Order: sequence, then C-alpha cells, then structure tokens
Amino acid sequence: MGKERSEKERGGGEQNKRNLFVSSVVMNSCAAELKLLLTALLVVCSIATLFQILPSRFTISASDLRFCISRISTSNTSIASLNSTPTSTPTMPPSPSPPSIRKDQVADNGVIKRVFNPYGSAAYNFITMGAYRGGPNTFAIIGLASKPLHVYSKPTYQCEWVPQSSSASNSTFSTVAYKMLPDWGYGHVYTVVVVNCTFSEAVNSENSGGKLFLEASTSGGGDKDFNITDRFEVLNESPGDINTTLFSSKPKYDYLYCGSSLYGGLSPQRVREWIAYHVRLFGERSHFVIHDAGGVHEEVLEVLKPWMELGYVTLQDIKEQERFDGYYHNQFMVVNDCLHRYKFMTKWMFFFDVDEYIHVPQKNTIKSVLDSLSDYTQFTIEQMPMNNKLCLSADYGRYYRKWGFEKLVYKDVKRGIRRDRKYAIQPRNVFATGVHMSQNVAGKTTHKTEGMIRYFHYHGTIAQRREPCRNLLNVTEINFENNPYVLDTTMRDLAWSVKKFENQMIGPKLKNTRQ
Amino acid sequence: MGKERSEKERGGGEQNKRNLFVSSVVMNSCAAELKLLLTALLVVCSIATLFQILPSRFTISASDLRFCISRISTSNTSIASLNSTPTSTPTMPPSPSPPSIRKDQVADNGVIKRVFNPYGSAAYNFITMGAYRGGPNTFAIIGLASKPLHVYSKPTYQCEWVPQSSSASNSTFSTVAYKMLPDWGYGHVYTVVVVNCTFSEAVNSENSGGKLFLEASTSGGGDKDFNITDRFEVLNESPGDINTTLFSSKPKYDYLYCGSSLYGGLSPQRVREWIAYHVRLFGERSHFVIHDAGGVHEEVLEVLKPWMELGYVTLQDIKEQERFDGYYHNQFMVVNDCLHRYKFMTKWMFFFDVDEYIHVPQKNTIKSVLDSLSDYTQFTIEQMPMNNKLCLSADYGRYYRKWGFEKLVYKDVKRGIRRDRKYAIQPRNVFATGVHMSQNVAGKTTHKTEGMIRYFHYHGTIAQRREPCRNLLNVTEINFENNPYVLDTTMRDLAWSVKKFENQMIGPKLKNTRQ
Repeated sequence: MGKERSEKERGGGEQNKRNLFVSSVVMNSCAAELKLLLTALLVVCSIATLFQILPSRFTISASDLRFCISRISTSNTSIASLNSTPTSTPTMPPSPSPPSIRKDQVADNGVIKRVFNPYGSAAYNFITMGAYRGGPNTFAIIGLASKPLHVYSKPTYQCEWVPQSSSASNSTFSTVAYKMLPDWGYGHVYTVVVVNCTFSEAVNSENSGGKLFLEASTSGGGDKDFNITDRFEVLNESPGDINTTLFSSKPKYDYLYCGSSLYGGLSPQRVREWIAYHVRLFGERSHFVIHDAGGVHEEVLEVLKPWMELGYVTLQDIKEQERFDGYYHNQFMVVNDCLHRYKFMTKWMFFFDVDEYIHVPQKNTIKSVLDSLSDYTQFTIEQMPMNNKLCLSADYGRYYRKWGFEKLVYKDVKRGIRRDRKYAIQPRNVFATGVHMSQNVAGKTTHKTEGMIRYFHYHGTIAQRREPCRNLLNVTEINFENNPYVLDTTMRDLAWSVKKFENQMIGPKLKNTRQ
Repeated sequence: MGKERSEKERGGGEQNKRNLFVSSVVMNSCAAELKLLLTALLVVCSIATLFQILPSRFTISASDLRFCISRISTSNTSIASLNSTPTSTPTMPPSPSPPSIRKDQVADNGVIKRVFNPYGSAAYNFITMGAYRGGPNTFAIIGLASKPLHVYSKPTYQCEWVPQSSSASNSTFSTVAYKMLPDWGYGHVYTVVVVNCTFSEAVNSENSGGKLFLEASTSGGGDKDFNITDRFEVLNESPGDINTTLFSSKPKYDYLYCGSSLYGGLSPQRVREWIAYHVRLFGERSHFVIHDAGGVHEEVLEVLKPWMELGYVTLQDIKEQERFDGYYHNQFMVVNDCLHRYKFMTKWMFFFDVDEYIHVPQKNTIKSVLDSLSDYTQFTIEQMPMNNKLCLSADYGRYYRKWGFEKLVYKDVKRGIRRDRKYAIQPRNVFATGVHMSQNVAGKTTHKTEGMIRYFHYHGTIAQRREPCRNLLNVTEINFENNPYVLDTTMRDLAWSVKKFENQMIGPKLKNTRQ
C-alpha cells in the first residue's frame, strides 16, 4: 500500500523538471526492479533465518546494512510535491514486506508470554576518525563509541590484519585490542575510544601491503541476546607504503602543537597574535596543527594562510564530527588523533589552547628547557592567569592598536586556587592523551617546572570580537572584583619583537586584521 | 574472500547430519541466488543514492533493514567446524560489496578535510512492550527508548491510524504524540517512554478494523545529519474488535494489583502467605497481575497456580525484557504496561511489592476506606516497617512453622525518617505511573490516609530462602541495632483467619511449601 500511494503522490505533484526527472527514474527503476528486488531480499532474510541454527559465536555485521542508510545523505534539495503529502511519510528505500511482528502468547498454564519488539537504531557502535601505525607490529585506532555501551557493558575490540597478496608467508592474523577511554565520564551519546592493536609479530614486514580491520563487538550492550560485531577496514597500506626507519629516526620537528577543537566566533586578531608569537617561540623546527570544528571562519583562515604557506601550520577541517554528540566538539578524540597521526614527526608535542601563551623565562630558551626535561615523557606547565579587561592608562587612545598580550598586563595572584595546567609529551612513549594531561604514558611525568616554563592565559579573549580593554589603570597592584592583581609586563615587553618577527616572515599582509 | 573462505570451511567441517544439511542448503542457495542477490542489493543502494536529492523531510526507516538482523536469533546450536577457525569471523548474511570507505581529502588551500565513518548500531531506537486503546480517540504505547537520545536530543513521536478497509469515510490520519518519561533519571542504555496518541476525532468509530503505527524519530540524536524515523505497527484492531461501552461501563474488578518485576530466588512460602492474605483482604472483585522477570521459579509458580486457576491471578512472563538494559528489570515499563492494559478493568489499581501487606485498621473495611477516597484519583499509603529477624520467645520451637507476618512482630518506630510510600489510583484518570506514585494524573492526590490504610513492610524477607527468625524476645519494646522497636501483633492476630481462608479457597495443597 505505502509503496503505491507514495508513487502516485509523487507522480501527481510534478512541478518542475528536476522533480519530473526524479519521479520517472524512480518509477521506472522501481517498476523494472521491484519484483527482482523483493525476491532477492526475501532470499537474504531466508538465508538469515537459516543462520539461526548456526552457532552463537557466529556474529553479524550490521555495518554493511547500515551503509545503505548512511548513503541517504544530508542533501536539502527541496521537492515541494513531497512536502504536500504530510499524512503518508514514504519509507524508503523500498523495503522487504513489513516484518511480521512477534505477538504475545498464552501458554497452556495460562501464563502470558510477553514479547518485546525492537526497532531502529539510536546510536552507532563505532565511528572512526583515524588509524595509525605505531611501530612494526602496533596500531592505534581513534574514534567514538556509544557511551552507554561502555558504561553499562563491556564492548570488546579485536584487530585483524589481512595482507594484500596471499603468499604463504603473509597470513591473516588477529589480536585482541586494548582499549583506552581518555574522556571517561565526559561523553554524551558518544565517548572517545583509543584502540591499541599490538600484534605478536611484525605486520606487513615485507612491505607488500594489506589492510587493518577493526572488529567492534557490543557484548550484548544494546541487546543481551546479541553480541553484534561490526567489522570494518580502518587502515590500508599499499605495497611499499611503510618506512620502518621512521620509527627510530630523528623526527622532522622538535615541537609540534596539537590544538583542541576550535569553534565559535574567534577573533582573527587574537589568532594572528597567537600564531606569530608561537612560531617565533618554537622556531624553524616546529609545526602547528589546528583543528577547525567551525571556529576557523574566513577571517581566521586569512591570518593562518601565510603560515600555512610557509609550512608552519596544518589545518584539519573536523567539522563533520559535529554530527556525533560527544564532549565539547569531541576535543578528546581530536587530541588523540593528533597524537597518533604525528607521533613520529616530532620530539615534543604540546597541548594547550589558542588563548594561552607558552613562556620561557629569560636566561633559558625553549631548547635548553626541553633538553633538561628530556628524561621525562611528560611535563605539565603552570598557569599565569591574566585579567581580560584591565589595561594600562599609558595605552590611552591607542590600546585598540595594541596586541592582546601587549595590553592585558594584570596578572591574577590569588593564592590557594587550583589552576588548570597544560602539558607537553614525548609522543613516542604515549598511548592516549587527555586535555590537561595524559594518563597513558610509558616513562616519567614531572610537574616541577616552575621557573622553567609556564603559560600566560588570557581567558575569555579569543571568542570575543570587541576590544578587551575596559578599565585603564596606572598602578602596579590592584584589588579588582575581589581578586588581587599585579602588573606583569613580561609578555608586553615581547610584543615589539613578535611584531617585527611577523613582518620579517610574512610581511605586512595581516596589518588590517580586525579584533 | 570472506565469503568463499567461510563456505569452504563450513564444507570441510561436516561432522554431523545437521551440519551437512545446513552447509548444503547454504551453499546451494548461495550459489544459485548470489548473483541475483548482489544485483538486487546494488539496486537498493542505487535507489538509496537517488534519494539523496529528495528533500530532507524524507525519512528512512532503519527498522526494516534491522529486521533481517533481529531474525538472526539466539540459537546456541553449536557447529564445531566453525569454532575452529578463529582468524576469519564470517560476517553474515551475505552483504553487498563492502562499503567504499570515505577518505580524508586535501583541499586546494591545503586544508585537510577529515571524514568520520560510522559503523553498526549500539542501541535500538524504540522497543515496544504494549499498546492499548484508552478511549474512542486515544491510545497509549509503552516501551523503551535509547536513554542518551532522550537526555541529549529531543526525539519525537507521531501516530498514524490506517483503516483496514479503504472506504471514503475511513481515511488514514496522523497525530503528534505526547511522550512521558516516568523513570526520568533512572534508565541505563534504555529509558521508559509512555507515548500518548490522542487524535482529534474518534478512530475506528465504525469498528471496521485498522492498525496503529508509531513513527519514532531520532531528531538527529545519534547523528545530527539524519532524522531517522522508524515506523512500525503497534496495534491491530480487527473488524468488530472494539467495544466502546467498555470505556464508560462499571469495571469488572474493584481492586487490581499491578506488581513490579519479580526476580531472584523468591521464597515460595512468603509468596504463598502474601497472595492468601491479599485475596482475603481485597475479596472477590479483585485481581492480581504478577510480572515474572525471572523470580517466578517452579516452586513460586506452584503457590500461584491455585489462585490462577480460581481466576485471581494473571502471570505475565516478562523475562524477555532482560535483553534490554533499563532500570531494575525495567520495572517502570512494567507498571505502565499494567496501568494501560487493565485501565478499564478496575476501579482502583494498587502498586506495591510482595513483601508489603496492605492493612485497613478495624472498624473499617477496604471498601469503606476506598469509598471515602473516591473523590481522589490517587492516594498514597503510609509504611509500617517491620524488623525482619526479631521474633517472639513464645514461638520457640515452632517458629519455623509460623507464617512470616505472624512471627515478625517488631515494628520500627524510629522517628524523623522519610519512608517510601506506596499508592493506589483510579486508573481511568492516569496517563503514566511510577513506582512510589504517579505524576501524570488528572484529578486530586491525597497523602492524608493515616489511620485509614497503611502497609506493613517486611523488608528483606521475600528473596531469602532461610528462616527469618534470628532473635527471640519476650518484651514489648526494645532497642536493637540502634533502632527502637515496639511489639505490634496486628498482623499476627490475622494469621489464623488467613490460613483458614486459604484452606477454604484452595484446600491444603500448599501446606508443604518451603521457605
């Protein structure tokens, strides 16, 4: 019934050529293939029924079926004729005859055996962001998984390597994977999972290519009757792809910045200042990976472009992750993807935000400090919180031309407050990472970095498009809004040389950047 | 690859006739239908692709596809040959060629456009337990839905009535449904939903039959790109099925008990005592609906059987709900199903547990009390907490033959403690219900029932198979484990007449029941 009705309605509503085209294609293809189609789908279900008597170890992949669904894309092309028929929502694509609903049954002893009929799907089992080789026999897969699955059940993961050629020395082999949940307690519909697959022997050692598959099992999480396993390709190595010297050779960069998800109406001027400052700080052997979750709008892209062209910045467009409701634009997934993607590209990897400025006190350089910390896999960095509206009377009349870290010079010195720390790691020894530190590291972590390295934090300045200076002061100490502040011109004193550095590197092209 | 391998392995492992039969059927049907099948599934996906250019209002039902999956049942028939091939888990049923994984792309400006590939399903969208007519134009559908869907998104429900005959006066019509979440904050993977569908006019008023469909939309909960709507039949009325006088006539029963989910190793003797006591209390125009979530084992069934045969007890086997991880054996779903299923069968409906005994103080009867409360849609009932191990010295040597409410005579009289209340309702004015009271009622609720009706609570006695008496006392007051108790023989004094009543009703057949 539903089928014929909706075809008729579609035919009756032809109002433009595109609609006509769609309708006739659909009708022709439906008319021609319908019989074939229903027959074949009946066969599928019959075969499925046959497999009822196969053993329970036998698992079924829902992902292939779902793929048909996921190809129904987000296209918003509107066809008016369909919208005019609200009482009969067509269910497409043409499906097999509707499922015969299981009914309650009354047993001989009068007991009513109730049945529960499940429909549809409310969450994916797994969503991949990236999969990376971590050595001759190990891989990391970064993605999202259904959160209640991990809270109330114990989903398991297994990896399988399938060689491209089928020569005898290259057999398929599997390993049970180790899962890490770096945002534990934070996810929404989805939570972040880092799957570590370490095989007992080298994989693709002949460099003849192959594929890594992840098998993600629900362990009965959504339905205790089924341990549904979805198996899907996560990595494809072509012959000659891998370069094992990578894992032991000196990395391309000394310092790589992994940014968290950027979103909202970011200030182009603040981003301009931040990148110029940090390229100068970290120097030639540094790189910055920026993740655009919607925050890199046209004007922000303008200030990044010159540095992208010089090779200092890589911009990752991660807007698609917004489809999946995790914590804070899935920032925990993003930093873990960055960790594994660039693991062998850098000696040190930094995790902090674009309203934060790393600073090494004088007499030291970033190199001398990090060399002294090279025994540690991880160190954390103390925060210098800066007020985001107190400026200097000396800047009166021209503060709007000053840079943010130049004019915001009052440091919060309230004691006894636990302040967030940021951190850096030597990524080759890290398996998963967080936002404020990593809990999955091999090797030592130190927090004793006071006096060696710290960061100035200009909270609330990056997502604001108007002038931050609100109060102009000419004092060295002040109690403002019940908080003690002192004048600290450390960053202000660097502004001139950062501006000069920017001009040397990319010229004056950003001079008209707006707040 | 996967396909041919697994067939070969299956063929090679033929060890018994059943196995052989399965293998050959699978192989023949696969060989014959494979080409047809793959072709047809390609057509499905092609049609799906075509619908990319249809408007976004256009929704897709995943439930039909999932049906193929859910028919892969829990059968544990074991076929050894398959278990011996751990490295190649077959993914069945034969699926269309594997999805071409979408790959990251590098844009002209150097930006890396990351893609996120989702797989599988971790939870159903909706699971039905029951759907009931609530009047000429209204229905209630009771089920479970994915909890994060309701916490982080706003799934919507719509109902559609499709008449059986297609005469002009009987057209299909729809209504937006009102959803109630009676266990809000308690669910796990799933949360309980009561969907109220009230149409603007009478439905099936000619009594010519039809079907009620529920359309459950995810509103982008698991994937913001898709508002997936699952549409499924929830109620089927055959011609002549409905009796509209039911809604206004005097109900069959005065008192109906809706029990919560029973599970665990319940004491048959305690259940025997409970049912005899309450049949006597509520009398001939009463009925008891017991929900077996696994607690009604063989011995418990024995003590219920005589009362089932007399028509006092209906046993609902709800063990299947254990498949779906909600709160406490999905008790909130169960009581709501009971409410709507028996809504027109009874004047009053009671919700309490099988370790609780309703009591009406002397000079009143259950009828006189409830008549005096008939202006209220709902009233709650005060608890008398009874100690579950203090007994009387007088029972020394024969306490094991006494009934539970006969020998447990010490009442907890600690003041200032908020104790759970239980409740009763006039169900025709109630739309959804909880465990301790209902929050979706029309009409008044009263809690001022002290002295009129109360319940004795023998906590911790029902799921214990050994003798409860642990301490024998001959005092009228005692402080035990830092709690004050007083002797209260109200229930003890009724034991003799309850035993006599049981014997009159069903004879001595339960006299050998064990604790």
